[in-house]
Amino acid sequence: MKISIERAALLKAVAQAQSVVERRNTIPILANVLIEAEGDTVQFRATDLDIEVVDKAPAQVERAGATTVSAVMLHEIVRKLPDGSLVQLSDDPAAGRLSVQAGRSSFNLATLPKEDFPIMATSEYTANFAAKAGVLKRLFDKSKFAISTEETRYYLNGVYMHVATGEDGPALRCVATDGHRLARIDAPLPEGAQGMPGVIVPRKTVNELRKLLDDDDAEIAVSVSETKVRFATPVITLTSKVIDGTFPDYTRVIPMGNTRRLEVDASEFAKAVDRVATVSSERSRAVKLSLDTDKLVLSVNAPDAGAAEEELVVAYGDERLEIGFNAKYLLEIASQVDRENAVFMFNSSGDPTLMREGNDTSAVYVVMPMRV
Amino acid sequence: MKISIERAALLKAVAQAQSVVERRNTIPILANVLIEAEGDTVQFRATDLDIEVVDKAPAQVERAGATTVSAVMLHEIVRKLPDGSLVQLSDDPAAGRLSVQAGRSSFNLATLPKEDFPIMATSEYTANFAAKAGVLKRLFDKSKFAISTEETRYYLNGVYMHVATGEDGPALRCVATDGHRLARIDAPLPEGAQGMPGVIVPRKTVNELRKLLDDDDAEIAVSVSETKVRFATPVITLTSKVIDGTFPDYTRVIPMGNTRRLEVDASEFAKAVDRVATVSSERSRAVKLSLDTDKLVLSVNAPDAGAAEEELVVAYGDERLEIGFNAKYLLEIASQVDRENAVFMFNSSGDPTLMREGNDTSAVYVVMPMRV
Repeated sequence: MKISIERAALLKAVAQAQSVVERRNTIPILANVLIEAEGDTVQFRATDLDIEVVDKAPAQVERAGATTVSAVMLHEIVRKLPDGSLVQLSDDPAAGRLSVQAGRSSFNLATLPKEDFPIMATSEYTANFAAKAGVLKRLFDKSKFAISTEETRYYLNGVYMHVATGEDGPALRCVATDGHRLARIDAPLPEGAQGMPGVIVPRKTVNELRKLLDDDDAEIAVSVSETKVRFATPVITLTSKVIDGTFPDYTRVIPMGNTRRLEVDASEFAKAVDRVATVSSERSRAVKLSLDTDKLVLSVNAPDAGAAEEELVVAYGDERLEIGFNAKYLLEIASQVDRENAVFMFNSSGDPTLMREGNDTSAVYVVMPMRV
Repeated sequence: MKISIERAALLKAVAQAQSVVERRNTIPILANVLIEAEGDTVQFRATDLDIEVVDKAPAQVERAGATTVSAVMLHEIVRKLPDGSLVQLSDDPAAGRLSVQAGRSSFNLATLPKEDFPIMATSEYTANFAAKAGVLKRLFDKSKFAISTEETRYYLNGVYMHVATGEDGPALRCVATDGHRLARIDAPLPEGAQGMPGVIVPRKTVNELRKLLDDDDAEIAVSVSETKVRFATPVITLTSKVIDGTFPDYTRVIPMGNTRRLEVDASEFAKAVDRVATVSSERSRAVKLSLDTDKLVLSVNAPDAGAAEEELVVAYGDERLEIGFNAKYLLEIASQVDRENAVFMFNSSGDPTLMREGNDTSAVYVVMPMRV
């Protein structure tokens, strides 16, 4: 293999690949990126055996071929090269080295045989459809905060993407929950997604996917099977195993009969929650909401440290109610609200509370109360 | 105590105080800031028993008095209050609480009696002088990177500030070393500093001092005794114990007879060192410098990972020389060079090397070589 490539194009491609590589690897080849040059393209492939990313970049290929080198080291080197450099990569299979040259800098990196690199088995995808990057970004960004970090409940360690019947008809739906709070986000069902099996997309995949979604208007090709999911732009393909488990029936958790309606400026609310939570200790960050006609008092009582109270003018017309929540959970759901006011629907102080962004029913959040 | 104070003034004063407070305290009072209000001033005092900072701010004092509250919590609360708020602090000694009010937010913080707060004993200062903030900043900023982190060599855990005879006459001198590299920075001796005892200013004090030196032209009042050092602006006074030990005779370490002169663009040099060091493992980050007429080749050879080489055009007229250094040390001294080229003076590959900024002899660095 012998190629010339612009430093900027190389950096972008290698950056995406190296971020999939796990920093602590017991299997040496998994620390490497597979570089394959052919035609007028060079392709970078990295994997952690659960996720595989393939990134293409245009290059002048003088001699086709393939090899593998440390993804992190190649990335570091390219990052440190001066902007505007032309980089030459050429491998010497006999010596087991890849030469990286740019200007007066030259590097000789240890390689591992390309044959040792594990290529992810291809899958028969049940459903293939296209979605705008902006739509996927909203589905995953608004749900991922609720992903569980408890490894024993592995089936909650991701976002459940599936087909559902939303309030406005068939929907592509993302749900995440950790048992304390839940997010349910809908988008109109894209054509071709009808027969899609529901899949639990792991947290790491959700984070890696995010890097493909910078341009809202870009079309992302999505493919789904029972065991895998694939997201692809013209240059990057991200393939991931899905979590092998059954996502619990979340529909029973979403309260339908809550009638006590509170409407509040989401940003003011979040700032006030953040302030009063300052006095509480890390462990039991409980904030009490005391509701009265058009008035909300947020309060925290931490016996050791002190107490805090803040009053907000809100829209509330129901009877008096006191209810407690984990401050972090309140802050996280309040920060999902983009434009409109946050609307909370309460039942009693012991029941799950529902939160929406204004009257938009395509994003619904549930949070369990705490005793205060 | 009952006072009103602008949020911005309060934030600034509390920020400086809380940064001295150690995060893990076994003595509860040391987590607190002592607030003293009198006249038209409120004063915030914090200590870790080695360093004491006192910060003054203008306030409307309705009732004079004093109390102590958690420095970190007060800082967090004030930070989160809306910009432009007027904050009211009033204490209730019977209840042991301090009330913090701003707009619709109110906090009640646990206090500890002001009598329990340890005030640092005053000292008889042997020398009192004034120095520009910019001068002190240069003295400490350029030397602190070389402070040792080895606790067993506690007498190297700070910057040795003393009176010396520099190349341009009497000097206020700061020296730091960890045995592998050394920095010696001189400034013209300020009036009144002549009889000053040499003191080792601890690392934490150096870092706290830095926050007083933002305005280059500000006059800093410096007081020095055998056991303490004090730096004061009109609003902030930082008092610190000095390290109780003898700083080693560093003069013997500074090579005077090195004759092989290399002049190099410091920024180009640092970038090249950083690049070639990428291939080396964390532990033995040795970079080899191979010098020939007007040519410097930097190289690293890491058997496992690979090799790297970069050539620089330099000014060098002596005989060929190969010498190795720890990459981190080279980067740190090269990054001290502000304007001019870096000038290295070598002797042999086993001898300490001297580095200067151009022909300026008021900042001198020494670095020990490594075998490569």
